[in-house]
Amino acid sequence: MAASQDRGCSELIEKVLAAVDANLDASLARLFELLRIPSISAQSAHGADCRRAAEWARDKLAEMGFAARLSETAGLPGVIARHHAAGPDAPHVLFYGHYDVQPADPLELWDTDPFDPQLVDGPRGKRIVARGAVDDKGQGVSFFEACRAHIDTTGTLPGRVTILLEGEEECGSPSLAELLRNERDTLAADFVLVADTNMWNFDTPAITTSLRGLAGVEMTIKGPSRDLHSGLFGGIALNPINLLTKILGDLHDDQGRVQIPGFYDGIKPLPPALAASWSGLGFAATEFLGEVGLTTPAGERDQAPLAQLWARPTADINGIYGGYQGEGGKTVIAAEATAKLTFRLVPGQDPASIIPAFERFVRAKLPPDARAEFKDSGAAPGFLVSLDAPFMRAAQAALSAEFGKPAALIGGGGSIPVVAAFKRHLGLDTILAGFGLDDDRIHSPNEKFELACFHRGTRSHARLLAAFANS
Amino acid sequence: MAASQDRGCSELIEKVLAAVDANLDASLARLFELLRIPSISAQSAHGADCRRAAEWARDKLAEMGFAARLSETAGLPGVIARHHAAGPDAPHVLFYGHYDVQPADPLELWDTDPFDPQLVDGPRGKRIVARGAVDDKGQGVSFFEACRAHIDTTGTLPGRVTILLEGEEECGSPSLAELLRNERDTLAADFVLVADTNMWNFDTPAITTSLRGLAGVEMTIKGPSRDLHSGLFGGIALNPINLLTKILGDLHDDQGRVQIPGFYDGIKPLPPALAASWSGLGFAATEFLGEVGLTTPAGERDQAPLAQLWARPTADINGIYGGYQGEGGKTVIAAEATAKLTFRLVPGQDPASIIPAFERFVRAKLPPDARAEFKDSGAAPGFLVSLDAPFMRAAQAALSAEFGKPAALIGGGGSIPVVAAFKRHLGLDTILAGFGLDDDRIHSPNEKFELACFHRGTRSHARLLAAFANS
Repeated sequence: MAASQDRGCSELIEKVLAAVDANLDASLARLFELLRIPSISAQSAHGADCRRAAEWARDKLAEMGFAARLSETAGLPGVIARHHAAGPDAPHVLFYGHYDVQPADPLELWDTDPFDPQLVDGPRGKRIVARGAVDDKGQGVSFFEACRAHIDTTGTLPGRVTILLEGEEECGSPSLAELLRNERDTLAADFVLVADTNMWNFDTPAITTSLRGLAGVEMTIKGPSRDLHSGLFGGIALNPINLLTKILGDLHDDQGRVQIPGFYDGIKPLPPALAASWSGLGFAATEFLGEVGLTTPAGERDQAPLAQLWARPTADINGIYGGYQGEGGKTVIAAEATAKLTFRLVPGQDPASIIPAFERFVRAKLPPDARAEFKDSGAAPGFLVSLDAPFMRAAQAALSAEFGKPAALIGGGGSIPVVAAFKRHLGLDTILAGFGLDDDRIHSPNEKFELACFHRGTRSHARLLAAFANS
Repeated sequence: MAASQDRGCSELIEKVLAAVDANLDASLARLFELLRIPSISAQSAHGADCRRAAEWARDKLAEMGFAARLSETAGLPGVIARHHAAGPDAPHVLFYGHYDVQPADPLELWDTDPFDPQLVDGPRGKRIVARGAVDDKGQGVSFFEACRAHIDTTGTLPGRVTILLEGEEECGSPSLAELLRNERDTLAADFVLVADTNMWNFDTPAITTSLRGLAGVEMTIKGPSRDLHSGLFGGIALNPINLLTKILGDLHDDQGRVQIPGFYDGIKPLPPALAASWSGLGFAATEFLGEVGLTTPAGERDQAPLAQLWARPTADINGIYGGYQGEGGKTVIAAEATAKLTFRLVPGQDPASIIPAFERFVRAKLPPDARAEFKDSGAAPGFLVSLDAPFMRAAQAALSAEFGKPAALIGGGGSIPVVAAFKRHLGLDTILAGFGLDDDRIHSPNEKFELACFHRGTRSHARLLAAFANS
């Protein structure tokens, strides 16, 4: 790029950023429209709401000049939007987001209606409070609004942009493979940009270079053919809740290691460069845990806190239920009891082996008369993104320009199965640069997105679009 | 008793029994009125219904000539009804029953509305299906109707009768002690008759001479100050559901023994006479368990099946809940998880020591950051009734006359805390003669009472009243 071109770009991006700043209230109003739609993909009763959210995104992107449409699947539809005015040779970014959100319960712990977004005062200025405020509606809309600022300023986008929104990210992405297969040609970009991750802290942007995978299963232990009175049957009759706790109580040993045979097979040590980068982050476990009322890392005793969070697999019971759960007591022996579990996975583990290994672990512990039923909800591997991936340098430069300091290279303890899916189905690498914060309460009551993060996220996306196009 | 008197009694009881038979339909209609009142004592939303059931019983007994009233407590009221026309020297029986019922959930497993009683066909003829059909509304009304037959036939009752109905039997009898203290003088009978137990089988009546006690507790394990995302926090954050299963998974060892230190302290071996009586019953564990889809006694490996059921204490988790319990999955680490437990106790165990011992057992297993909160729901000891208790011989004779065979002397695995309370507060012995069957599904969906059992129960109560008065 010649110096004059560089200056031109610099002037141009300043105009685009000014448009972002000027339009912040309008951007926020549009985000609130989307946040009012309770698009909970895990609950079939909200199927129509999910579709309404998809249509909202399609229509908003079409208004901006994207060729936008729904892409139907066996489950909820994807949204596909293309803006290719930059011409067939321009760099091509595929932006991924999801329009679905987690269930909002327990509702009684929210200070406001989760689907009536509010702008409330917080220690870092205003914050947006709603289910999906940051995960992932806020992050997605920040990209839309960056595109809008470019189009409003220059009439077009600096490169080719394709947007893919998924509707089932919060329930295991059952139709994602179908969507990627169906839209393989449309989605053939140079790389993928995903904004579903966090900054290192309020002042420091981050690019996430590793993620954990996920395997999920629901298990029901069955015993008697019906609920029994514990006076008439207690002592002689198998109690499925007792048994469920006995089996799951063996999930970890006293050192915090998962006791499922073969669970740790294939895990490789962390690459030394990444290990060094992580040590440099100065992660303070006490502070991190202190924000949620804890003091002590509770994972494998022989692993550093950041490794427990980013580099080691887990076995967590996410929900459990059986028998009487109402007020007071009931002297019942329940006919069955259920637990929902997820396993966070790391690179090297074979995701397809985890649930079968868990099932064998459970079945080996079943006494006479007990049965176990399993609902496998799918699995995705852990992921390491190469620092040499295309456009990574442009991303680092754009974030440095916005924040005045380099982006931290961090790991992520969560799972974004789509990252692995893009590599597998489309052969594409992914850049993970998001603008959430660790205290955003995603998946919890009172989820929020700092207004400043939304704003700087939009500005960063505007810079990223320009940087990618010129790289 | 002279021979002519004996003949007179015999003719009289035949007339009373004929009245029972002639009034069966009307008796049933009255029972259905009571069954339609959803008097669930464990759920505060049903407080008014409970009071309505108490008032129904008071009014029905008053119509029959009882001096009937409610007896208020800090909780739900008792019903007290006296019919003492037989004079101050006549034998005085205190009949105990309870007007409250267990919660009806899970509602979807009922074939009919639990509070819309039905008479349906079964293998042993018609059966009454409703929550409370047998426990304890059906058994209570069978005693009322026996009194009615005596009064309709002779204008009075053969001895002094006091009826006490409790309203909190299904939620641990929190106000029973208060009730017995308040009504100490009114309740000063010769003995107590309780109809809240089962026959040995459809053809064989039974007198229950031992019962297990009960101690209950609700435990909540707390960790993080809020629900967490398992991607952001999984591995490093304490998971209260994982911990709950780890603690409760240690409740029993591999031989089925409860591992709470001191749990078995004080238990004495079964009296040899009772052990011999139980062996003679020919209890078939396979058949007993087969009716509820089980094959194998699941209690302490070194205990006989009947001992597991009647003579050994238990630790059962009656309910468990935490985290996400809806459709699909949610990658959450819940802030807390709860279990409701009851312990069936046997004579010799100190009921007051059980929940504190459980609490120590739990607290010793808590890692850093975990807290345990307990709600102790009270405790009642196990109980052995002496075969030499007053009026026991008359009870055996009356049941033999009705069924043409002697009553079995059996144990009960359940708890009727009132039996111990009568001994403690009033110094009275209790005769337990009930007309339920083991397959009546009490506390479960589709609770039923065989119409034949209701009918023979009413006839038996008519005979018992006469026999007690003449003993």
